[in-house]
Amino acid sequence: MILAAARERFGSAGYQAATIRAIAADAGIDPAMVMRYFGNKEKLFAAAVEFDLRFPTYDDADRERLGHLLVEHFLDRWEGDEALVILLRSSATNDEAAQRMREIFGSQLKPLVAKFVGADEAGKRAGLMATQILGLALCRFVLRLPPVVGMDRDEVVEWLGPTIQRYLDP
Amino acid sequence: MILAAARERFGSAGYQAATIRAIAADAGIDPAMVMRYFGNKEKLFAAAVEFDLRFPTYDDADRERLGHLLVEHFLDRWEGDEALVILLRSSATNDEAAQRMREIFGSQLKPLVAKFVGADEAGKRAGLMATQILGLALCRFVLRLPPVVGMDRDEVVEWLGPTIQRYLDP
Repeated sequence: MILAAARERFGSAGYQAATIRAIAADAGIDPAMVMRYFGNKEKLFAAAVEFDLRFPTYDDADRERLGHLLVEHFLDRWEGDEALVILLRSSATNDEAAQRMREIFGSQLKPLVAKFVGADEAGKRAGLMATQILGLALCRFVLRLPPVVGMDRDEVVEWLGPTIQRYLDP
Repeated sequence: MILAAARERFGSAGYQAATIRAIAADAGIDPAMVMRYFGNKEKLFAAAVEFDLRFPTYDDADRERLGHLLVEHFLDRWEGDEALVILLRSSATNDEAAQRMREIFGSQLKPLVAKFVGADEAGKRAGLMATQILGLALCRFVLRLPPVVGMDRDEVVEWLGPTIQRYLDP
C-alpha cells in the first residue's frame, strides 16, 4: 500500500513536490512508519520504481522480426506496469531518477542488444533504440499527443517495428 | 533577466518546485516586480517557454532528403534554444507544460507535415515523427544516455534521417 501510494504521488506530483507526509496520508498511515520502512524519500523512490524490463532471451526468435517483437514487448511492459511511466516522468526533472533510467538502460537493454550486434556496437544501437522507445512512451503515456494515443497496438508495432529493426540491423 | 532566471529555475527545479521568490532572487529583483510583469507563475512559465520551431517552408527541398533536413533543423533548434529543453522537462510532470507541448505539435509540426502527406494523414505522421524527435531530445539532453550524448551531429542525422523520412513517406 505504501509503494502504491508512493507511485501514485511521485507520478502525479513529480519527485520534488512529492512528500513523505502526503504519501503516508494517501496510504492512511503515520509518516514515521514510512520512514521506518524505507529510511528516506530517495530510498522510497528507488523502491517504488524498481523496474525489470523482463526481456525474453529471443534465442529462437526470427532475427528479421526482432524489431516487431521488441516493440510488442515494450508496449506490454509499459502498459502493464505504471512504475515505468512514473520513472519516466520523474527522470525528466530529477537527477536520481535519470540516473536510475541510465542504469536500466545499461544493465538491461544494452546486454540484450550486445547478443545481436556485439559488444562494440551495443551501446550506440541500444541508445538509438532508446530514443525511439522512450519517445513513444513520452508521447503516448506522458504528453498524450492525440494521434499517438489514438493508434492501436498493431499500428504502433507496424510503424515502429521497422525502425527498431534498422537500429539493430542496418 | 527575469525570463533567463525563470528558464534556469524551471529547467533545474521543474515547474512544481520552482517559486516566484527563488526566480526573483536569482534575477536580483523583488518578487513583487515579477508578479507585476507576469501576473502569476503560470503566465511567467508560458513566457519562459514561448517557442517557435521556425520551420523553413521546404518548398524547394528534395523530397527524398526531407527526413535528413528535418533532423538537422530539430538539432539546431534544440541546441540553440534552452527553452525547448526546459519545456520538455516540465511537460513530463506538469499538465500546463504538456498542454503547451501539444499546442506546439498541433500548430507547428502538423501543418508542415500536412503539406507533404495531406490533411488526413498529417496527425498520425506528425505524431510518429514526434515520438522519434522528442525521444532523441529526451535521451540526449535530459536523461543524457552516454551513447546518445556521444554521437556527433552527422551521426544522429545519418541514423534518424531515414526514420523521419519513412514516417513522412512510407
